Amino acid sequence: VPDRGVRAAILVTGTEVLGGRVTDRNGPWLSERLRELGVELALITIVGDRPEDMLAQLRHCAADGLDLVVTSGGLGPTADDLTTAVVARFSDRELHLDEQLEERIAEILRPLAKRFPHLDMDAVRESNRKQALVPEGATVLEPVGTAPGLIVPPREPGAGPTVVVLPGPPRELQPMWADAVQRPALREVLDRAGVYEQRMLRLFGIPESEIAETLREADRRGVDLERLEITTCLRRGEVEVVTRFAPDAADIYSALAGVIAQRHADTLFSDDGRSVDEQVAELLVQRALTIAVAESCTGGLVAARLTELPGSSRYMLGGVVAYADAAKVEIVGVPAELIERFGAVSTEVADALADGVRARFGADVGIGVTGIAGPGGAMEGKPVGLVCFSVSAVLDGEPVRLTRSVQLPGSRADVRDRSTTVAMHLVRRLLLGATDAPSGAAEPDTAVRAERS
Amino acid sequence: VPDRGVRAAILVTGTEVLGGRVTDRNGPWLSERLRELGVELALITIVGDRPEDMLAQLRHCAADGLDLVVTSGGLGPTADDLTTAVVARFSDRELHLDEQLEERIAEILRPLAKRFPHLDMDAVRESNRKQALVPEGATVLEPVGTAPGLIVPPREPGAGPTVVVLPGPPRELQPMWADAVQRPALREVLDRAGVYEQRMLRLFGIPESEIAETLREADRRGVDLERLEITTCLRRGEVEVVTRFAPDAADIYSALAGVIAQRHADTLFSDDGRSVDEQVAELLVQRALTIAVAESCTGGLVAARLTELPGSSRYMLGGVVAYADAAKVEIVGVPAELIERFGAVSTEVADALADGVRARFGADVGIGVTGIAGPGGAMEGKPVGLVCFSVSAVLDGEPVRLTRSVQLPGSRADVRDRSTTVAMHLVRRLLLGATDAPSGAAEPDTAVRAERS
Repeated sequence: VPDRGVRAAILVTGTEVLGGRVTDRNGPWLSERLRELGVELALITIVGDRPEDMLAQLRHCAADGLDLVVTSGGLGPTADDLTTAVVARFSDRELHLDEQLEERIAEILRPLAKRFPHLDMDAVRESNRKQALVPEGATVLEPVGTAPGLIVPPREPGAGPTVVVLPGPPRELQPMWADAVQRPALREVLDRAGVYEQRMLRLFGIPESEIAETLREADRRGVDLERLEITTCLRRGEVEVVTRFAPDAADIYSALAGVIAQRHADTLFSDDGRSVDEQVAELLVQRALTIAVAESCTGGLVAARLTELPGSSRYMLGGVVAYADAAKVEIVGVPAELIERFGAVSTEVADALADGVRARFGADVGIGVTGIAGPGGAMEGKPVGLVCFSVSAVLDGEPVRLTRSVQLPGSRADVRDRSTTVAMHLVRRLLLGATDAPSGAAEPDTAVRAERS
Repeated sequence: VPDRGVRAAILVTGTEVLGGRVTDRNGPWLSERLRELGVELALITIVGDRPEDMLAQLRHCAADGLDLVVTSGGLGPTADDLTTAVVARFSDRELHLDEQLEERIAEILRPLAKRFPHLDMDAVRESNRKQALVPEGATVLEPVGTAPGLIVPPREPGAGPTVVVLPGPPRELQPMWADAVQRPALREVLDRAGVYEQRMLRLFGIPESEIAETLREADRRGVDLERLEITTCLRRGEVEVVTRFAPDAADIYSALAGVIAQRHADTLFSDDGRSVDEQVAELLVQRALTIAVAESCTGGLVAARLTELPGSSRYMLGGVVAYADAAKVEIVGVPAELIERFGAVSTEVADALADGVRARFGADVGIGVTGIAGPGGAMEGKPVGLVCFSVSAVLDGEPVRLTRSVQLPGSRADVRDRSTTVAMHLVRRLLLGATDAPSGAAEPDTAVRAERS
């Protein structure tokens, strides 16, 4: 395990985040940025808008010997926005009004007044005067919205963490962080961090426990795992193996990656961190192929995933959400007798959806998804979580197809989300040359074994 | 503000969560459960798989005088799963092997072996033996997956927090929590919590700062805000006002709710916590109406949102993701000359998408969405974030329509997500009787003013 240079905490404030109504996006985002800078993140803590709770957490960070604390939120104009005052108290620095900053904030607020003609501008300006209070000795980060950020050094070098104070809205926080890392007050801390490399392997169709066994096997073969910080996790149906190491341990990492590649050749799909979405996009663009999707239980999520990346209009023509059976027949062209004979949730209908949407959109690749997301809708022999997939195409003049029927675990949302992952992997495999035997006999669905564990 | 009875912390473990690659779902979920039980949540902390970091956090919780700590994660079979050992050390209790529990875990693992015939079952059983280690005096919570949970009381009453140890996967954690709250060891703590009520108001099309001003106005009118714990937050383009209060402050809350309802009659859309999605679903079901959507920049997300609730097949027929212009023309029936004349991103094309998809699916209500999600694709006079919406229907024999052109801020993902919110609110308003003047002159888009702030 690499030794620890600079250790940091992220302190997210906001009663709405603590209360579970708002998902914190800043903690994860800052976590990745700190890792890129070689900073060791010790914890992310979410507190409400109570100053005493926030102060206690800052003091714990100091007691734990952390070098850096990055806060988000609590910089707004309302009375419950107290971060600056708490940080000033924590670092024992007086607050003073920065009049030029106050004027710049007033400047920012002027156009707002035109949009909201009924606003009481005096009240607004008074609230925002609070935002121009700066602890002495702190570096001001220019507002992206209306709130400035701060870099507050410890009273004496080494006497506590440097605190970087950032606003809560991600679209203000992110550009401001880019500004902060350029400033000498933060650079001074960051420059003490070591340099680490990080690599990610991604596997699909394997339980996490098999990776644990592979790590033991690598150990038995003499790979010095002590020099690597390895994390494995199951994420949206895929296993990710993330390894962090000092530059001189690169050969050890290569040895580990070799063992994993050898033992999991059929399920390792990414050794450079690229997602299946990125791979599918690249395969489609490289071969100048277009794609369309007809989906039922996923209700648009497969199409949404295929349009998530910028530039997706180069390959994605569109899709049909064939939720009602009539839509499957009338819009996608699924023969009504197929639905009658096999049921709407069947591999036969999945095939017809894939073929039908390909024809309707004039696409090279078609995806069909039909299943039972639950909680209701189960039938004899067709439990909740059963989802049928088909991906069909004509590649180099050859008709190719992959058809799968999968039993997915979890809630309605889980089943819908996991289904999009299965669909993406089937597209990837088809584009890389996999195809079902022409007899139509589906191979055992190793693609989705992990879903069942 | 209600006084504090029982105070708690949530401690989430997992390097993959701390690293930002996995979104923590347990913290927010447990936060809501604790609130329902009248427990005051002080903080949520995420730590990695390092025992010393976790132990430090537990000790901080004890130092802060917290009564309860709920942990999630770190109960798996791998070497980095250390929660039980750390909690035993924290509470100064010896670990012993519970042999009956070990046998029950073995029983759970047996069927797994059939699914994964290549597993080394001895290694699996050995790893899982670790999961049968129990701190003395702890209550065992039966495994939902393979990992049991624990309730570990303090060494002496009042000598520290009771620690509830739960597994990381939400679908194991959630049923196990339901079990835990029935157990005497946890009941004893929970019974000390007070009883609080909680209410939520939701508004759309208003900046958060206007609510702050309304609270000041309520204060001026003599509403005793000191008795209420009020949180406001902006979430997916809506402002939520959540108020928590002791039962004897119910009249005070009613007074506050009255002031808000009076000042924000046009933007307050929910006073019972119901989401716009639930309201749209209820309005459609009550009136036995069906709906379909044709969407471009949102790429399926509007359809996905309309199929998110169980039972949505009662009203949702489906949709078309008309990503390519040819799909707008050929699948939805948008006249090609409209696209040529006004551009694909125009209110005219949005109207044609709504009308076209309604006709194609035979639906009562049609939604059309077309816009520029970015980061590329901006054109002269059509910046990134410009999204055009149309909702059309024939209600009680009358053709009605709402058309809006909105400039949304943020990233590609933000624009796509906010667009779904705008679409849902337009549907709600149309179903409640709003309609544009037949001349086609769109009213100023107050519906989405807040999006611009």
